[in-house]
Amino acid sequence: MTKIVAHRLCALAVDVGVDALILQSPENVAYGLGFVVPSQPLMRWRHAAVVFAADERRAAICVDMEYATVRARCVDLDVRSWAEFTGSAMVTLAELLGDLSLANGRLGLEFNYLSAADYAELSALLPQATFVAVDADVARLRQIKTPEELALLGRLSRIADRAIAKSFAEVSIGSTEMDLAATLTRSVYEQGAEQFKLMIVATGERSEQPNVGPTSRRLASGDVCRVEIFPVIDGYHAGVCRTAVVGEPPPFAQEIYDNLAACKHLVLEAICPGASARGVYETFRAQFDELDLPPISFVGHGIGVDLHEEPYLAPFSEATLEVGMVLGIEPLVYRTGHGFGMQIKDMVAVVDGGCQLLSDVSDTDALLRIGG
Amino acid sequence: MTKIVAHRLCALAVDVGVDALILQSPENVAYGLGFVVPSQPLMRWRHAAVVFAADERRAAICVDMEYATVRARCVDLDVRSWAEFTGSAMVTLAELLGDLSLANGRLGLEFNYLSAADYAELSALLPQATFVAVDADVARLRQIKTPEELALLGRLSRIADRAIAKSFAEVSIGSTEMDLAATLTRSVYEQGAEQFKLMIVATGERSEQPNVGPTSRRLASGDVCRVEIFPVIDGYHAGVCRTAVVGEPPPFAQEIYDNLAACKHLVLEAICPGASARGVYETFRAQFDELDLPPISFVGHGIGVDLHEEPYLAPFSEATLEVGMVLGIEPLVYRTGHGFGMQIKDMVAVVDGGCQLLSDVSDTDALLRIGG
Repeated sequence: MTKIVAHRLCALAVDVGVDALILQSPENVAYGLGFVVPSQPLMRWRHAAVVFAADERRAAICVDMEYATVRARCVDLDVRSWAEFTGSAMVTLAELLGDLSLANGRLGLEFNYLSAADYAELSALLPQATFVAVDADVARLRQIKTPEELALLGRLSRIADRAIAKSFAEVSIGSTEMDLAATLTRSVYEQGAEQFKLMIVATGERSEQPNVGPTSRRLASGDVCRVEIFPVIDGYHAGVCRTAVVGEPPPFAQEIYDNLAACKHLVLEAICPGASARGVYETFRAQFDELDLPPISFVGHGIGVDLHEEPYLAPFSEATLEVGMVLGIEPLVYRTGHGFGMQIKDMVAVVDGGCQLLSDVSDTDALLRIGG
Repeated sequence: MTKIVAHRLCALAVDVGVDALILQSPENVAYGLGFVVPSQPLMRWRHAAVVFAADERRAAICVDMEYATVRARCVDLDVRSWAEFTGSAMVTLAELLGDLSLANGRLGLEFNYLSAADYAELSALLPQATFVAVDADVARLRQIKTPEELALLGRLSRIADRAIAKSFAEVSIGSTEMDLAATLTRSVYEQGAEQFKLMIVATGERSEQPNVGPTSRRLASGDVCRVEIFPVIDGYHAGVCRTAVVGEPPPFAQEIYDNLAACKHLVLEAICPGASARGVYETFRAQFDELDLPPISFVGHGIGVDLHEEPYLAPFSEATLEVGMVLGIEPLVYRTGHGFGMQIKDMVAVVDGGCQLLSDVSDTDALLRIGG
């Protein structure tokens, strides 16, 4: 459990006026504990919960089969287990809250995660408690990353960037998308990622399609290749996308890429503490419209234990950027009108006076090349 | 959308006495539609829902950015989209139900999935409706697979089995777990899987650990290797685990493996329509105890759009096996006491008179070998 996050969560309980926060979604459990309770994200009924009290006490529950894992990683925490097939997570949680003298308390819950059935059970078990939704408050807190989170997101960004660079280096004309994917996935594991989410390998005419995985399509000269991967460690994600061309670029590819790269710089330059998220989008969008590129609804979003988090760099955003935020920024064109799509997705941290590029392995100012 | 499943779901609405089922969990949406709404499992707030009315009408809602995908795959369905950043899924769902004259109806919901916040919103939008939990009824229905589901689960089982066999064939002493994982992941994609869940590559002393991914550990003579992977297509999973030894087996490995293989046969022989799930477990457990192997809490479970489904082959189960059920069966020993763990996980379908092995690529009667 990371001490800074734990302290921030306990302080949040004070700020929002509850006696304790009870976090139950896989992403907030990972945030609170500093690691993923292994099978929780795969099997929704394997409930886990972490309690952060306003007086700094902390405790957790998990399913019996994950108890040893959680226990080993949280030696100083009161951890209770509930029996998967014969017990009830809500009963164990209510007992824990009783032992912590919180049964009559004001308790913060994730109303956007907790199921209607679990909420009904927990309410009946704790008839004297008052429940308050804290989803948005926790999400707000998560936007400002700790030094530890920044280091991890930086590491994940470079894992993704390096893996894509390696995959581009190892293929050539005649290689398949599978060859590319094989290097890519191997590389993310070799660099220490625990898993990855959403691998996109879209080459040639397939580069126009948003979320497609690898096929046996063979690379040909002039193919535009859009490749994206989200490596994951301890529940945190980075998302990096690169576009390369096999051999010589087809007509319009160089020009459109140069425009995208210019938009990337525009976004990087606009991001700084105090900037409005909408303002960054509008700066980007004005340029995109001028270039006659098809509009996209946002050009960036927060990222961390969720793939997308606030703040979005979007017309509807009311957020102001702050030091410690980490954003995925992604100028992209799926349909250029010339049979290919292009995207540059980078990870950046908002720092004093501007932003720091976390995905800093590949030089994306120029269109990347795959050997012909 | 698969017609048989759609018809079964509408018939279920009649059976449980509701005017319509409203399915919202990613697994039940995949079950109802026959495919995964792409980003729904990755981003929980991207709500989708499928409505199956007792009078056979069907409709769906999805987030705007997935509309084109859902529309293309459901040409004959009333599909509505809601706007991710400016709209509300529950408002769109309530409007759809109103248009279907279901606003005053008796509606089946997934109370174990629907969040407390969404339930509160939907209830307020439909004050005349009555809501009934149908989670268990839908789960029960899903246990009996259609011919289409059986074919898909058979295909997935062979993809996993073949990928593991290929990975064992391509490594030798000095190869790393990463080499093994690289072949494994490449092979599942090459065979058409859309993704995979939970890859376990546990060799040597690591074979004792339950859910661990690949590392840079090098294979040495006498290593026991436990490898498992769950390929996924259209939201359906197969889970297959194989155990191999590098070169000559270490002391006790052959004997323990032979015992596991014998237990596997015992389970395969015990599975047939009409058998009690608990009875199958007890038959297995008696043999396991006699061999002095450490007890496991279940030796099999249903599998399909969820990684684990009812029925479990376990002491607490009250289920009776039926034709059309698909089970993952997994005699295993994590800690043999000799520095290695072993597991055989197969996929089987319950058929007339017995069961059919779906993961039928590798011959697991003998301990598999990795070239020395």
